Amino acid sequence: MSHTDPQVTEADRDDEIEDEIELDEPRLRAIREALEARDPTALDDLIEPLHGADIADMLEQIGEGERATLIELWSGHIDGEILSELDEGLREEILNALPAEDVAEAVRELDTDDVVDLIENLDDSDQADAILGALDDVDRVAVERALAFPEYSAGRLMQREVVVAPSFWTVGQTVDHLRQADELPQQFYHVILVDPRMRPVGHVTLGKILAAPRDTPLAEIEEESFRTFEATEPEREVAYAFNQYHLISAAVVDADDRLLGVITIDDAIRILDEEAEEDILRLAGVDAEESLSDRTLDVVRRRFPWLAVNLLTAIIASLVIAQFDQVIAEIVALAVLMPIVASMGGNAGTQSLTVAVRALATRDLTGANVWRVIRREVVAGAINGGAFAAIMGIVGLVWFGTPMLGVVIAVAMVINLIVAALAGVGVPIVLDKINVDPALASGTFVTTVTDVVGFFAFLGLAAIWLI
Amino acid sequence: MSHTDPQVTEADRDDEIEDEIELDEPRLRAIREALEARDPTALDDLIEPLHGADIADMLEQIGEGERATLIELWSGHIDGEILSELDEGLREEILNALPAEDVAEAVRELDTDDVVDLIENLDDSDQADAILGALDDVDRVAVERALAFPEYSAGRLMQREVVVAPSFWTVGQTVDHLRQADELPQQFYHVILVDPRMRPVGHVTLGKILAAPRDTPLAEIEEESFRTFEATEPEREVAYAFNQYHLISAAVVDADDRLLGVITIDDAIRILDEEAEEDILRLAGVDAEESLSDRTLDVVRRRFPWLAVNLLTAIIASLVIAQFDQVIAEIVALAVLMPIVASMGGNAGTQSLTVAVRALATRDLTGANVWRVIRREVVAGAINGGAFAAIMGIVGLVWFGTPMLGVVIAVAMVINLIVAALAGVGVPIVLDKINVDPALASGTFVTTVTDVVGFFAFLGLAAIWLI
Repeated sequence: MSHTDPQVTEADRDDEIEDEIELDEPRLRAIREALEARDPTALDDLIEPLHGADIADMLEQIGEGERATLIELWSGHIDGEILSELDEGLREEILNALPAEDVAEAVRELDTDDVVDLIENLDDSDQADAILGALDDVDRVAVERALAFPEYSAGRLMQREVVVAPSFWTVGQTVDHLRQADELPQQFYHVILVDPRMRPVGHVTLGKILAAPRDTPLAEIEEESFRTFEATEPEREVAYAFNQYHLISAAVVDADDRLLGVITIDDAIRILDEEAEEDILRLAGVDAEESLSDRTLDVVRRRFPWLAVNLLTAIIASLVIAQFDQVIAEIVALAVLMPIVASMGGNAGTQSLTVAVRALATRDLTGANVWRVIRREVVAGAINGGAFAAIMGIVGLVWFGTPMLGVVIAVAMVINLIVAALAGVGVPIVLDKINVDPALASGTFVTTVTDVVGFFAFLGLAAIWLI
Repeated sequence: MSHTDPQVTEADRDDEIEDEIELDEPRLRAIREALEARDPTALDDLIEPLHGADIADMLEQIGEGERATLIELWSGHIDGEILSELDEGLREEILNALPAEDVAEAVRELDTDDVVDLIENLDDSDQADAILGALDDVDRVAVERALAFPEYSAGRLMQREVVVAPSFWTVGQTVDHLRQADELPQQFYHVILVDPRMRPVGHVTLGKILAAPRDTPLAEIEEESFRTFEATEPEREVAYAFNQYHLISAAVVDADDRLLGVITIDDAIRILDEEAEEDILRLAGVDAEESLSDRTLDVVRRRFPWLAVNLLTAIIASLVIAQFDQVIAEIVALAVLMPIVASMGGNAGTQSLTVAVRALATRDLTGANVWRVIRREVVAGAINGGAFAAIMGIVGLVWFGTPMLGVVIAVAMVINLIVAALAGVGVPIVLDKINVDPALASGTFVTTVTDVVGFFAFLGLAAIWLI
């Protein structure tokens, strides 16, 4: 971020320049020192220039005790913006710590979609009621209507505040209307054209309205492409469409195609972000809800189930090894080398798996190319398997001086890397077909397959060829 | 996506309704059948209604031979939009297949930032020259100037097309000026206020301009918060700021703070997307450049290095096992159980690692909470380690009937899960400090640590307590 040279600044620009200040490590350290010293003046000076998003990040990074001190000492308010930027896990703690009138004031500043986001994640229904109670009647009804839509639907995501014009209006009529409007949404990018029954029929960008002569009919400058979403559509579909078609805002309609609200790009980005994050965490066996401000016992509880699944699969792999205990007792070198075959299979499988899971998420892997991708992965697995078979064959031979041991590990390696490729692509595709999130469950399946096949191929071939 | 009921549509809305059609599996199948049957009419009917982004996806999903047939038969043009939506790997193939005049026409439609994106990823410099040659002088100079900025910088990301107004203008002057402008950017969201030396001093949203009376000074309705980026700033910083501060467009300036261009939200989303994708792929040991349209040999080449690293680390773990070959020869049960300890450590380590890598990427893990997070992970590792130690102790005892074997596996489990937590958080933090992407290299380090510690603790304790 560039900081403007103070010499070229005019006096009235102080506000903007301060807004450019970001939360960096020295400032964070200074804030913690001010909290430690219980110095409200220093605290105000340090926090006031920060953007709400940065204040929220700061609250997440300091400790629980420091947060309490901050709320007590800071003369500023935790406003609506800060609340909606906060990690869900922390919101309840902060809401509990704030005086009721502060919460009410904070909530009244927010657009309805942000209030919905705030309420839907609260476990504590008293807090939800308090927030609803703080709203004026119109907003409360809007929020309650939004909450009546299913979770993760377009209806929850949209804001009610819309800017519409009859489709037969001219630019001049629209501009006059906007100038007379009591209140306009904080951010809007299009005027939505509606028919007499409030059904959206198109939209016009603000840029086009500004550039066109007053007598231009809106219909003449409307965008070529216009998409609406039904309120019950899943938010992930909405986010996908925003990303795919570069939308900036889109109208939301009910089953009769009547305008209900509008979804803007910032909501879509949040969902896209959450989806990518979910994939990353789930692929690693971490609960998608986990956050850095979770307490230790929450972390224990969230991580345990996946580790338990892994324990079961590890035991299955061990049962395979146990079948060959006589072989291992005779040739201990097998115990030394067997993890290599399993580990290479696991890694190759994870590579194929991750590519497949992401391609499914971005809808790049479809019926049209599924066989081509599977063939590609399997051939690539066979070629890399061959290369590593040659390397490990030589290592095995040199290390233990038994040529046949080199052959065994080489053949097992090729088999396992081919199986890894097959499982890596096949498992997520099958899970996706049966509507299980491939990111969630594929990892366990694939590494179980590569462990079992790796141990079985290596020890089985050893039993046949070496004994 | 809701499809408007045909009965309520007016004739002049045909275009928009067709635009709502998406690329789904039946349509993709029909396109492939039309290609197979070499039926240009069917092909046109199927492709024309699609959005450019969907046409690009379709081109990525069909085979190479089908693409050639499509370019030959389809009467429509691969336009600039389709080209910029295409996977980088496919662009050169398509550019080579297209007649020169089609390429020229396609490129002239694009904003300068999209031309830059197109050219910077071409390996073939003849193609780049051909594209530059197709541009008119003004655009060519703009593109060449952008290419002079470092790769992955704000300068490469920005478009030159900006809408500015002197900061002392009124709304009326601005609107008149916009109405007289020859050409405005396809999309713009703010009018940037500049001083007489073209230094941006603020910006006004189009919504505010539309809503304000003509005699309102722009300075009165400018946004409170205003951020500019220097052209040399890394694009990831820009993308982070767009996401963190919910920006929709931002001015880019040179070292003297003069306006050079503007970056819009669609560019920022693309970078955010790429960054998340990079993290996901790198965590799994997949080259971040890999794409689903890569050929088999590219896949082999891209995956090999990571598998080679993994082979080395697997051999290191095997060397640890080799130290205890006498112990294993005496008690074969150790060979059966040892992968369980290593596997649990690897999984727990990967969980901690993934959380840490993402927290670093989103800047949630900083000096302020690093010790708190490390402590949390280690304590959680110890608690889950204790739980699984109890389970595995019992399993070991029941399975092999040796109480001391149960104790050995239990203690090894606790040790390895604590180490896994430490390595999982510690390794990415250290890599980040020394400016290595933690997503790229952490995985290998962490699983090597958990393999080595797992085998060493389990076999070492067995050597002491069981023999």
